[in-house]
Amino acid sequence: MTGATSFISASADFASGKSSPRDFLEQNLAAVDAREGEIEAFVVRLDPALARARADEAGKRWRNGAQRSAIDGMSIGIKDVIETIDMPTGMGSPLYDNWRGEKDSASVRALRDAGAIVIGKTVTTEFAASHPGPTRNPHDLARTPGGSSSGSAAGVAAGFFAAGLGTQVVGSIVRPASYCGVVGFKPTFGAINRGGSHDYMSQSSQGVLAASLRDAWCTLAAIAVRVGGDPGYPGLEGPLTLPQARAPEVLIGLETPGWAIASEPARDAFENMKARLIDGGVRILTRRDRPEIDAFETMLMRALPLTRLINAWESLWPLNTYADRDASKLSAVMRERIVEGAELDIGAYRAALAERTSIRAAFASLAQIGEACVTLSAPGPAPLGLQSTGDPSFAIAGSVLGAPALSLPMLEDSGLPLGLQLLGFDAADADLFAIAAGVQGMRAKQGMQAQQGM
Amino acid sequence: MTGATSFISASADFASGKSSPRDFLEQNLAAVDAREGEIEAFVVRLDPALARARADEAGKRWRNGAQRSAIDGMSIGIKDVIETIDMPTGMGSPLYDNWRGEKDSASVRALRDAGAIVIGKTVTTEFAASHPGPTRNPHDLARTPGGSSSGSAAGVAAGFFAAGLGTQVVGSIVRPASYCGVVGFKPTFGAINRGGSHDYMSQSSQGVLAASLRDAWCTLAAIAVRVGGDPGYPGLEGPLTLPQARAPEVLIGLETPGWAIASEPARDAFENMKARLIDGGVRILTRRDRPEIDAFETMLMRALPLTRLINAWESLWPLNTYADRDASKLSAVMRERIVEGAELDIGAYRAALAERTSIRAAFASLAQIGEACVTLSAPGPAPLGLQSTGDPSFAIAGSVLGAPALSLPMLEDSGLPLGLQLLGFDAADADLFAIAAGVQGMRAKQGMQAQQGM
Repeated sequence: MTGATSFISASADFASGKSSPRDFLEQNLAAVDAREGEIEAFVVRLDPALARARADEAGKRWRNGAQRSAIDGMSIGIKDVIETIDMPTGMGSPLYDNWRGEKDSASVRALRDAGAIVIGKTVTTEFAASHPGPTRNPHDLARTPGGSSSGSAAGVAAGFFAAGLGTQVVGSIVRPASYCGVVGFKPTFGAINRGGSHDYMSQSSQGVLAASLRDAWCTLAAIAVRVGGDPGYPGLEGPLTLPQARAPEVLIGLETPGWAIASEPARDAFENMKARLIDGGVRILTRRDRPEIDAFETMLMRALPLTRLINAWESLWPLNTYADRDASKLSAVMRERIVEGAELDIGAYRAALAERTSIRAAFASLAQIGEACVTLSAPGPAPLGLQSTGDPSFAIAGSVLGAPALSLPMLEDSGLPLGLQLLGFDAADADLFAIAAGVQGMRAKQGMQAQQGM
Repeated sequence: MTGATSFISASADFASGKSSPRDFLEQNLAAVDAREGEIEAFVVRLDPALARARADEAGKRWRNGAQRSAIDGMSIGIKDVIETIDMPTGMGSPLYDNWRGEKDSASVRALRDAGAIVIGKTVTTEFAASHPGPTRNPHDLARTPGGSSSGSAAGVAAGFFAAGLGTQVVGSIVRPASYCGVVGFKPTFGAINRGGSHDYMSQSSQGVLAASLRDAWCTLAAIAVRVGGDPGYPGLEGPLTLPQARAPEVLIGLETPGWAIASEPARDAFENMKARLIDGGVRILTRRDRPEIDAFETMLMRALPLTRLINAWESLWPLNTYADRDASKLSAVMRERIVEGAELDIGAYRAALAERTSIRAAFASLAQIGEACVTLSAPGPAPLGLQSTGDPSFAIAGSVLGAPALSLPMLEDSGLPLGLQLLGFDAADADLFAIAAGVQGMRAKQGMQAQQGM
């Protein structure tokens, strides 16, 4: 199997000409030729001749020391709810078959300015919700890749591109990252400009699936410096390259609503990881250590029903306008959401927002106790079958909190990938990457020590 | 001249059948026939036969006591940056000639559910910025109606419809309301759902131009209860009918950046109004009374350059994508804004947001001193000519503050309309209407006393 490959690592040899963006692209295209038929990550693809020409131009810039950014010449997949001027945007819905918005989204525009090559639109569930597309998990074709950013996650895992844009309202980045064994990052709410991306809800963020921490950070940093965050937000803050690794001193170990349904092997994998972190000198505090953590865990049990109510209200429009056009082109789950939304009144929505605000306040106060939180990304490996994109009980935390959430492909369950999730505090995205790099470094060091019999 | 006419007042006779929404609509249609040729408020109009059929249906509902809302059967104009499924949305730009979004905006969907009749799309400046459309001021055809909500303001003033939706980022509701002698209301930021409306900037709000306070409030309240505010915001709060009038005890008299350039007659009109309010028992505090007000006025002098910078950054995308398509279809002022935006870096934008936040904090603290603020809506009457939509130096205050701003057609300058502007505190929209109704009531009472020689 071709695996996820890092563009940023490869770029070390671009200046000398020992390697090039074109060489990297050829790897991607070979992987696509070999596996796209069975994986179906793409909705539409760029003409390979055009991609090659763009990679060659980027190669020249690297050799001249004039690269536009760290991702100049990097191939990228774009979730098919995000507009691209040269390709239709289908939203995973027959209502938008071959629809064209006649513009690039803000993020895509920034990626092009940074030299990235948009090599295709990637499969999304219907309107980035739960009705699945055809994509299969590269690690086991009988399993879902997770959703809703299905094609971006599977495409990175299969080596089709080094990074893919995704969006998350419930668990749509963290979950497929976990199932596909890639890095997934959902930034702080508002940190990446959503203009021209059809994700407008109050828990929705644009983020990335990527082959490495470095690819994930460099991609979003290159976007943010050019088009910022949502209007009125400061945008993702931090350096253009991966923040310096930093071993954390205190992490908060969270159960989230997910722990109760986590598989035995997933729980074991997490407990082993915790033990290794503790061996590495990290203190891990849990609900059994601090009443504030316990109280927060209790509040977090409301995350899924609260999100369901908020989403039903916020998506009644435009779903009702789509139903007016042709209700038969909506999935049963979407038609059901319209019914749910229509039964709500604005008072129920306001109460849900107020409850969410209080959960966020409780979370913010945990910053006094630990530097970040650690938990699983999913209750187990990708489930069998393509009918469901999996359970969001772990991934929901970052969404309901509006907090940065990072899934690292560090664990396994039954020989399949499982993500370790780090949750950061508001706007502390760069610090979360520093801690993640520190955690990855600690494990690598421990691995070496183990090999050396220490 | 046919003037602005209130649907809500007329509706008192709908239940008895003494009058009907159809009768009201016929007045509108007669006004359109008489004056649209010279005013040009509309970009596109609904077939009058369809409008009549819908008014008749609403009339039946009123007679059965089954009206859907206070605005059931009310004709309304929709600014042409807000999507409508049955009419194209042109954005005041040749780039969007005959463009169709294939859906209703959230607000339009709510209006239809409330029974309102969308009788046409109204002229906007190019992308709701400053390059003007063809609309003329109903009070003097040689003058601008103001902008960017030009057609909605002129259409209300001419009696074409009782209310028109507008949007404001700088002065686009308050200014044309002042020039056209109608009520204009820009609510608290986020209070009306902007989904499907092409105003996405961080100072942008959807609001209304209307024939009376009552029409303005009932229209927005009918929208908010159905589709709320922007996702994550509580939405406009208050009753479905006009809040109970309340005479204020203490108002803050503001100069804003506008006072320095206000005409002598405008200043006199404002001072006379102040004197009448004081006669009516209102205390009015200004920068000469309180150092906090003085400090706030000084900060507010930065409102226009700050807004210009924020808007240039926030509109670089999508303007750059429009320029890629065909720069010759952008006005010179828009091409200039692209250049300005491209010269900015995200640090400058973040600094501007931080400064705006500090101005907002200073404003919020004024709530300890007075119940609302009072100032002019514009430095004078509508200027001659259609090349400029006028000066925003008074209207900018509500935009930069994200605060509710209400322009009342209570003053005159040189025989032309001039608005009195009331500014409320964050989310105190309903209270601002109560105060406005109180102020209108005081003037009416004083007028009666004056007639009676008291």
